Amino acid sequence: MIRAIIFGATGYTGLELIRILSCHPEVSIIGGSSRTWANKRASEVLSYLPQSKDFPLVFIDELINGAEADVAFLALPHGDSASVARRLLDNGIKVIDLSADFRLKDLATYESWYGKHKDPDLLGGAVYGLPEIHRLEIKKAELVANPGCYPSTVILGIAPIVNLPEFELKSIIADSKSGVSGAGRGAKLNTSFCEAGEGFKPYGVIGHRHIPEMEQELSLMGATNIKVRFTPHLIPVSRGMVSTIYVKTRPGTLPEMVREAFRTFYKDEAFVRVLAGNEFPDTVKVRGSNFAHISLEIDARTDYTVIMVAIDNLVKGASGCAVQNMNIMFDLEETLALTALALFP
Amino acid sequence: MIRAIIFGATGYTGLELIRILSCHPEVSIIGGSSRTWANKRASEVLSYLPQSKDFPLVFIDELINGAEADVAFLALPHGDSASVARRLLDNGIKVIDLSADFRLKDLATYESWYGKHKDPDLLGGAVYGLPEIHRLEIKKAELVANPGCYPSTVILGIAPIVNLPEFELKSIIADSKSGVSGAGRGAKLNTSFCEAGEGFKPYGVIGHRHIPEMEQELSLMGATNIKVRFTPHLIPVSRGMVSTIYVKTRPGTLPEMVREAFRTFYKDEAFVRVLAGNEFPDTVKVRGSNFAHISLEIDARTDYTVIMVAIDNLVKGASGCAVQNMNIMFDLEETLALTALALFP
Amino acid sequence: MIRAIIFGATGYTGLELIRILSCHPEVSIIGGSSRTWANKRASEVLSYLPQSKDFPLVFIDELINGAEADVAFLALPHGDSASVARRLLDNGIKVIDLSADFRLKDLATYESWYGKHKDPDLLGGAVYGLPEIHRLEIKKAELVANPGCYPSTVILGIAPIVNLPEFELKSIIADSKSGVSGAGRGAKLNTSFCEAGEGFKPYGVIGHRHIPEMEQELSLMGATNIKVRFTPHLIPVSRGMVSTIYVKTRPGTLPEMVREAFRTFYKDEAFVRVLAGNEFPDTVKVRGSNFAHISLEIDARTDYTVIMVAIDNLVKGASGCAVQNMNIMFDLEETLALTALALFP
Amino acid sequence: MIRAIIFGATGYTGLELIRILSCHPEVSIIGGSSRTWANKRASEVLSYLPQSKDFPLVFIDELINGAEADVAFLALPHGDSASVARRLLDNGIKVIDLSADFRLKDLATYESWYGKHKDPDLLGGAVYGLPEIHRLEIKKAELVANPGCYPSTVILGIAPIVNLPEFELKSIIADSKSGVSGAGRGAKLNTSFCEAGEGFKPYGVIGHRHIPEMEQELSLMGATNIKVRFTPHLIPVSRGMVSTIYVKTRPGTLPEMVREAFRTFYKDEAFVRVLAGNEFPDTVKVRGSNFAHISLEIDARTDYTVIMVAIDNLVKGASGCAVQNMNIMFDLEETLALTALALFP
Repeated sequence: MIRAIIFGATGYTGLELIRILSCHPEVSIIGGSSRTWANKRASEVLSYLPQSKDFPLVFIDELINGAEADVAFLALPHGDSASVARRLLDNGIKVIDLSADFRLKDLATYESWYGKHKDPDLLGGAVYGLPEIHRLEIKKAELVANPGCYPSTVILGIAPIVNLPEFELKSIIADSKSGVSGAGRGAKLNTSFCEAGEGFKPYGVIGHRHIPEMEQELSLMGATNIKVRFTPHLIPVSRGMVSTIYVKTRPGTLPEMVREAFRTFYKDEAFVRVLAGNEFPDTVKVRGSNFAHISLEIDARTDYTVIMVAIDNLVKGASGCAVQNMNIMFDLEETLALTALALFP
Repeated sequence: MIRAIIFGATGYTGLELIRILSCHPEVSIIGGSSRTWANKRASEVLSYLPQSKDFPLVFIDELINGAEADVAFLALPHGDSASVARRLLDNGIKVIDLSADFRLKDLATYESWYGKHKDPDLLGGAVYGLPEIHRLEIKKAELVANPGCYPSTVILGIAPIVNLPEFELKSIIADSKSGVSGAGRGAKLNTSFCEAGEGFKPYGVIGHRHIPEMEQELSLMGATNIKVRFTPHLIPVSRGMVSTIYVKTRPGTLPEMVREAFRTFYKDEAFVRVLAGNEFPDTVKVRGSNFAHISLEIDARTDYTVIMVAIDNLVKGASGCAVQNMNIMFDLEETLALTALALFP
Repeated sequence: MIRAIIFGATGYTGLELIRILSCHPEVSIIGGSSRTWANKRASEVLSYLPQSKDFPLVFIDELINGAEADVAFLALPHGDSASVARRLLDNGIKVIDLSADFRLKDLATYESWYGKHKDPDLLGGAVYGLPEIHRLEIKKAELVANPGCYPSTVILGIAPIVNLPEFELKSIIADSKSGVSGAGRGAKLNTSFCEAGEGFKPYGVIGHRHIPEMEQELSLMGATNIKVRFTPHLIPVSRGMVSTIYVKTRPGTLPEMVREAFRTFYKDEAFVRVLAGNEFPDTVKVRGSNFAHISLEIDARTDYTVIMVAIDNLVKGASGCAVQNMNIMFDLEETLALTALALFP
Repeated sequence: MIRAIIFGATGYTGLELIRILSCHPEVSIIGGSSRTWANKRASEVLSYLPQSKDFPLVFIDELINGAEADVAFLALPHGDSASVARRLLDNGIKVIDLSADFRLKDLATYESWYGKHKDPDLLGGAVYGLPEIHRLEIKKAELVANPGCYPSTVILGIAPIVNLPEFELKSIIADSKSGVSGAGRGAKLNTSFCEAGEGFKPYGVIGHRHIPEMEQELSLMGATNIKVRFTPHLIPVSRGMVSTIYVKTRPGTLPEMVREAFRTFYKDEAFVRVLAGNEFPDTVKVRGSNFAHISLEIDARTDYTVIMVAIDNLVKGASGCAVQNMNIMFDLEETLALTALALFP
């Protein structure tokens, strides 16, 4: 049995790890950290957690010191993960970090978007944990940087065509929409029901911090000097994310040919489904599941390819992907605990 | 491997059976009926169904004739189940019916609420499939009448006190609220997004057909001549149901004592959680799970006990309960495929 | 032109006063208080406020001292209104208080539910501002205590039958459901989108502070020793409130006769609509309007009358009623600025 | 008093005309057509319509024949308006058509997107009714073609920069999101609560019929050979629309300079608000109002200008704009009945 600990267990990505791991046949959660609910049992805080899955909540330091764990999930705010990762690694615990702290390879890039890094020496050894792209490296990693939700959609949507000559990739537009859980669990006016419910709005239109991550990964695949024009919006749902991506395309390119390229690229992937023509991804069809649904159309009037990617931001966009990474790191079946169908309706 | 067939596979309770059974280690769905999508593969209709879980959709008659099945789930409109049950039973297929056709023991009562019954001879042999109440009979049943969603909440909420002298049960008020999926999948103006979303309304205030079912079951437990005053309302969510139940109570009755009676009554139940004082059930904490959350308070000012029960109307209120019944009927672990935690948030 | 000032202008009831008064032909808002946005113009904070309706936001003390106003609306937290009312009244400003501070006549009752009162001498002179019940007193009042949203629904629902012998009023059950805006604008976890959206839950099941207000008003009308068993719930919508009220009824009472009593009682009321039989109130049909929709049915099986009342909690349940009171106090047409139809869909 | 008739009075744009006109001091609705509810009074169908605003519902032909009206609003499906417009015009009734039938100047273009036109001779005399662009022509028009909701956002968002050399307009991307009411009131599976609520999805990705309308109008302003790459999406709200528009921009262009161009362009417009930098439009801030909120940012990393436009699709995107057109056509104050603030929250 793999013993897992979760830092930030009562935030939304922490809760989602608990949800997914509670059905994992090879994993037992032995502890979690929670600033708000330290020194309680998890089942006291989470009315839906059965006692057979219970574990203690403590403060971060206590969790680091006490744990006889095999794997640690860091569901902490950006910046905090970098403070705890080394101590865990030194204890022989594999680390899967859901923050942005170890996603960027280049320290200067990191610091220009996020500020001073707390443990830059770890950057080199971290593996970017998008299994569809970096599976082999993840297998050998001790420290995995779990991708951001928005970058997951954009990278999965572009990866199959990065090296196809039909597409002009230096200028990609990604118009993305996220459910409110992406903003975290802290109480804030702009994510309160009355402000975020029954409405729709863009936010962070210039300089969202997920941009360098998208550009890094697409560049590594060969799209040199790529720039992504990225606009996030807030959807009035708890979960769900759609990115609508626009790529300039050579006239005459046929959609079915490109769909076939997608199908080939993802043919061995358990969690990516390429939809048929005139079928579009819908967040309720991936809600609660680890699937990414991708569809594309080519607009012959304007020579744009429109690629649409839907995921559940908390599953494939965060905790589901983290468990997928864990399965890979521990040589388990990659789909363990991740085969639940979408909760539709 | 138990071979299952689903009649009405593409309605909401049918879809929910597919969702739950797709994770069941001992069951394989070998066919389903769908008037709208007959002669397609299920995965063509349900973009989230992986091919490994695929099965053909056909018309009802074809499904009856062709099936070499062990169990049939009838997720058909009221009245239609009674037309197909006998032919399945005759073929040695166990039947779990999610309609109202076999829930009432008394033919006259049935016909006064629903009209002429199509196969009244089967009424006597059917078992009312609320496992917490009728587990032993379900174990031996060939035909199980799966409870209605509203009755499940009211019966679970009242059963522990049916024989306690502190409660005056002849007049119970059940003020219930249901998510929109309870109305089924047919397109109707009153359940369209713009009419049912962003709003809240009572409906069917007099004479809702779930009433005789509640009264039958509570009477069988000993609450003689019980009458339930029942008011359903529509909540603008897909899934979720709360019943707030009022029972006149002897002055001086202490809530913790009654909570203890509930805990004792449900102590061996995997899917009922009795909440602590001042904790209230919340539909998002049972969404997608087979749990019922129950809490109660006693209002000493008015001598009413307020019992609150939350379930997911499609799971514990329909398809989850049906799978629980199947597990019992086939001598499987009762919780198989039903241990997923709530999808919160 | 009546000069109005609004204390607590940027909370939800304050914003709603601005929305309604901005269309009032006889009123000009000349100032508001806002702790968060003091020293800004209102239009800087409210992107939808045109400059022609702009006014300055200041701190409370500055608003009290500087105002040459005719009327002050107090949209402040409970307790705070009592600190400012006297100074305004002393300056000859009529006061309409939307908090609970002046709703209860009896100091002991007030203090047992709310704690120490800050200016008890004002209690005697305050008028409970439900126009349908106290119009004549409101006309002469200097200090009006605007009703709570829940009490408005219960009082409007019971008033027409308070003195009818068919009803047993000593024990009323009010099962009420409110949109999230009723909880105010402060950021709180339990009203954040991800916790309150897509769900439904009871709260404050024992001892909600709106109870004494209901009982006081119904008792004053003649329902001696009345007790209300009151359960509030949270609906996942911004606005809207439904109370479903149960009253034990003499066997044989006919619903159409009772409906007629309601129609007679409200025949001169501009904002109360008694629905026909088998028509039920729906919050989207009163959203944004000052209307109360009332329907009732009698359940001959259980001898309960079910009275259903729907309002927009921010309009008829708060700021719309406050403007209605202002119109009465200033001898204006009572419906001025309040005739907008519901925003449906 | 202007006598108005509404064809298609009980669809969503018809209902919205009733809502707005019921507060119009110079207009009286004297009749409406409704296939579903013909031969009823409007107040029987609309529980929120006061009797003082009541009018009869009849079939279309009866409304054409009987009406002594000054203005007719056609809130009919595409194709149906063209069948009735001429008869109304011949009777001296001014016509405001909310369908697409008279929006396109070029018959061939119309027929390639919509099929055969039923009265092509009327095309030439119709005026495209976007007041901010065509006010003077609207003033003299007998037949106004009210703009589509999506085109309104795109045209308002692009018009101020059509002739600025900093922008490369031949290839515009408009990523648009609409509330569900845009799909009309007919009951359909894909707009039912359980399918469209709690989710988000693109639709009609290739060849949406609002495209030629956008291109026609922008071309007329000078953007020759413009093509719009347009993607609509469905938001789980009743009302609200945001278009996020991407335009390639000359390096070094400063956002504040462009904002100033927008402010200048719209300086006399009552219903367009240009937001400040880092302020973004939000559908709840225009809900129920006739305002368009516009903001823009320039992304210096990618040289794209991002223009965001929010409206209420039923008001500024349909019926509010229609009333604005009527005010202009009848020489009334343009803002009459349209000054209500947004219903926030």
